[in-house]
Parts: sequence; structure tokens; C-alpha cells
Amino acid sequence: MGTTDNTGQSDFQPVFENRVRFAETDQQGIVFYGEYFTFQDEAVSQLFRDIDYDYDRMHEDGWQVHVANTELNYRNAAEFGDVIVNELRVAEIGTASFTVDYRAKRAADDQLLVDGSVTHVAVDLETERPTRVPDAFREGVTAFQGGLPDS
Amino acid sequence: MGTTDNTGQSDFQPVFENRVRFAETDQQGIVFYGEYFTFQDEAVSQLFRDIDYDYDRMHEDGWQVHVANTELNYRNAAEFGDVIVNELRVAEIGTASFTVDYRAKRAADDQLLVDGSVTHVAVDLETERPTRVPDAFREGVTAFQGGLPDS
Amino acid sequence: MGTTDNTGQSDFQPVFENRVRFAETDQQGIVFYGEYFTFQDEAVSQLFRDIDYDYDRMHEDGWQVHVANTELNYRNAAEFGDVIVNELRVAEIGTASFTVDYRAKRAADDQLLVDGSVTHVAVDLETERPTRVPDAFREGVTAFQGGLPDS
Amino acid sequence: MGTTDNTGQSDFQPVFENRVRFAETDQQGIVFYGEYFTFQDEAVSQLFRDIDYDYDRMHEDGWQVHVANTELNYRNAAEFGDVIVNELRVAEIGTASFTVDYRAKRAADDQLLVDGSVTHVAVDLETERPTRVPDAFREGVTAFQGGLPDS
Repeated sequence: MGTTDNTGQSDFQPVFENRVRFAETDQQGIVFYGEYFTFQDEAVSQLFRDIDYDYDRMHEDGWQVHVANTELNYRNAAEFGDVIVNELRVAEIGTASFTVDYRAKRAADDQLLVDGSVTHVAVDLETERPTRVPDAFREGVTAFQGGLPDS
Repeated sequence: MGTTDNTGQSDFQPVFENRVRFAETDQQGIVFYGEYFTFQDEAVSQLFRDIDYDYDRMHEDGWQVHVANTELNYRNAAEFGDVIVNELRVAEIGTASFTVDYRAKRAADDQLLVDGSVTHVAVDLETERPTRVPDAFREGVTAFQGGLPDS
Repeated sequence: MGTTDNTGQSDFQPVFENRVRFAETDQQGIVFYGEYFTFQDEAVSQLFRDIDYDYDRMHEDGWQVHVANTELNYRNAAEFGDVIVNELRVAEIGTASFTVDYRAKRAADDQLLVDGSVTHVAVDLETERPTRVPDAFREGVTAFQGGLPDS
Repeated sequence: MGTTDNTGQSDFQPVFENRVRFAETDQQGIVFYGEYFTFQDEAVSQLFRDIDYDYDRMHEDGWQVHVANTELNYRNAAEFGDVIVNELRVAEIGTASFTVDYRAKRAADDQLLVDGSVTHVAVDLETERPTRVPDAFREGVTAFQGGLPDS
């Protein structure tokens, strides 16, 4: 589905939309900054669904993922009722980890709200030690974004 | 520790305090109404700790709890930085369930913020069916509030 | 759009759907009970949008709403990834308050997850005292569900 | 109160503790990664209180803060009931922004859970444009950690 730009990076792809909930606002009248990590996480989960490799399949295959690092830059504030388009691309798949670039835009005016990334480590379900990201997962990502990121 | 009033109900007892977090406020500038259920839940969890019957011990004894019903009345609004005193009493222990009366007050002026209750059902860890609340738990509650509530 | 059953109550109407987020699960592997109040609140907010009387219009008309009471019964547990259909009907509109019956079902098997209600009080923006629910809001509800609930 | 190490950086100082709530765990049985940003934010808010320059005083002085960037590294997982010690130091105060280094440790075994930082931009309340961080705030930070960070 995806394409690759001339830096070797795939394009961002929208994976899900959510409308800002009242509970997600704070007394500044905007979405609390920590809430975007829930949106980021749902974007990654939707990627997993889109490549037919969700948490259930991970568990069947004996692994799961833990977040090792995450970062966000805040560009514009979202308000209650705003529809947010969450986009991502897999930036890198290493031996036992992968990094996803993530950004969120407001649907109404296409303004960038946040951008950043999250790195997940693949962990063996039994030993809880880092484990190799399976080939089937790598292939799913390749198909998703039209090319495997550098590892 | 507790005492019993002339209705046969024990007094409310403070079990934990929390300071309102910025993330818990909403754009009305007050604590979002759903947040109080997290406070209610922590009050119940602290009761479990206080009677030496926490979730780990439940699991060792083969059961856990599921919420069956909860209700809150909102009396006054709490704001960012307010310290909240969370109080409870066990209102009833049935065969396979128990109901806790809960209320929250603002420490600074002793104003009532919310009051209500939560009913937990005891569930067998394996069968996931309702199971009898163990005697040791009942005895812990009795010791906690100076008398066993009507069952 | 709505119809009225022979008890004088309107039918429940679906107002929005949400997919259970990973962050909404707890260590029991199900949606934390407090999260449903966020879903309940979004259902009510969507009702406001559907009748063209959202928070912005409330503010223009000089009022807002505060939750006075809420209650939920928990029937079945939802898990990560489940799609939830949130339904409601306005049960009663009083002078300065209204009560909404709410329920959530799992889309995949139509199982009831929770049911209950929430009562909002109309509050004057300036005085912060209870104020009459405006006629335009009442008329919006009437149109929404095919008849005005008893007041 | 603070001291400065030979890199010119002040020591981390504990500012508040919190016990992990049941609602903060996810189905992996650990604290959801996004929750730490709420803890980070409370650490910063407590710093503001400790230097007698809280949000109310900011508003009186015509400014507030918006998060511009945040990052966390995840070192160890916290579980339900764990007591977390939240520590910080102000790493840099620029003209219209400041960066706080943050870390969280488990009280029971002093294990590092997360570390990272958050950058706040000072924003004029009326114009919503970046504004100079007031001297009184800078002086509060200096007193807090025994020396002004490089700007």
C-alpha cells in the first residue's frame, strides 16, 4: 500500500481516527499531553491488526512487546470534539526491537498536533528477555508500507 | 479500630489521601466525574491492604473480585491540587459479594465531594463463577471496623 | 428518529462506537470499571451533537451541565480490541436536570456490557446555580427520540 | 537544598511519591507507559509548589506553561501497589522555556523505572505567544536546587 520517499523512508499512513473525549481535556481546555501516548499506542496496535499480527498472534508465537522509549513534540493543541487522524510508519526494525514514527493531525484543518516516535522491544513471553522479531512480523511490515526499513 | 453507630452501621474510616492531578481535571476546571471511581477503587484496595488480604492473597486463595455495581452522588467539585480524603465502610457482606460505602472529602475544608457505593462479587479464579467470600476476609473486615455488617 | 415503547419510554439509540484501548484494560485483562464513565460521557456528548446543542451552544446560551449522580451495573467484561456500541435514551427531563439511561454492548456478539444512568444538572454559567433546561434543548431531545420523556 | 555535581548539573531531588493504582495497570500486569507522563507532570507541579510559584501565581503574573516536548526511557516495570518516588532537577532555563530532567524509582528496591525529560514553554495568557520566564521563577528554581542551570 505504501510508497517510499527518496530518503528511503516510507510515507506516513493513517491508521485510525479518534474524537477527543471530554475526559481527555484538562483545565487549560486542551488535550492533556500524556493522552497522546494512548493515541500513539492505539496507532501501533492498529498497525498490528492491519498486518494480521496482533497481540493474540504474538502470544501464540511466544513473544510480546514492551515500550523502551517514546518521545513527542507538541505542535498545536487539540480541543474537545476535534477528530484526530493518527498516522505512522515503521522507521526501523532491529534484531529485537522496532521503532515507529508517529504523528497526529486534526482532521478539520490538517494541522499537525504532535509528532514523535516509540520504540518497542520484543520480549520472550517465558524468559522475559529480548528476543528476535519474527520474520512473519517483518514481512507484514514490508507489505504494509511497501518496503522494509533499514535494520 | 472502628465503632458502630446506633443504626448498626460502622463509622466511615479514612483509608487514603490523594492530591488532585492536573490530568484529572477537565475543561470545566474540576475533576472529571469518572476519575472518582479510580479513587473509590484505591480506597477499596487500601482496605484490602489494611486487613492483610490484598489481591496477591486473594489469588493464592483462588479468588478475585469483579465490580457488579457502582454509584456516586456528586456534592461539590474538587480542583487541581486539592487534597482528597477517601473514606469507606463495609456496608454488607453477602455470600459471594460485598458492598462498600464510599465517600470523598476535601481535606482543606472537610466538604463532602462525592458519596456512593461499590459492590464487588467474589469470583473463583478458575471457573470464573461466583464463589463464597472466605471467612478470613470476613474476619478481617470485622476487625477493621469493629463489627461485622449484616449479611 | 426514535420510537416509544408501551411503557412510555423511548427505545435506546446507538450514538457512538469505540474500540477498547490497551490503556483501558487493567491487570485482570478487562476494561477497568471506571473507564465506562468516559464512554457514558461521550455517549451523552454525542447526543448533544446529534440534537445540535453541544457545549459551545450551551455556553452561548449561558449554561453548562454538571453530573449529579451516575450508576452502572456490570454485566459482562470487555477486552482489548472489542468494539463497543454505546446506546442511550433520555429518561427524564426535569426543571433543571435530566437523566439519561445508558448501556454499552459488544458489537461482535451484541452482549450487554454495562447499563445504568447519569443525571446532569443544568447550571447557570455566571451564578453557578441550577437553572431551567432551555426549551430548545427539550425540543431537540423530543425530536431525537420521538417524544418527550415525562418531566 | 540542592547541590551541584562536577558536570554543573544539580542532583535529582525527590518531590513526590505515589502508589500505583489498579486503574494504571494494563493487561500486561504493569503500569501502562503513558501513565508515567501524569507522574512526570505531577513532579513538575510539585516543584512549582515547592518554589511557591504554582499555577495560580503564574496566572496572576500573566503566563502559563505548555509542554513542547517530552521523552521517557523505560528501564523497569512498576506493578500495582508499588510506591514510586518521583525525582527531578531543572536542566535548563531558556528565555521562554525550561527543561526538567525527570526520573521515577521504585521505593522498595530503589530500581530505576523511567528517566527522561519534559520541556515547557512559557506562554502569555492573553496573546498565547511565548513569553519570558519571569525572574522570580528563575530565582525560585535557583533556591530549590542550589544553583541556576545554564541558560
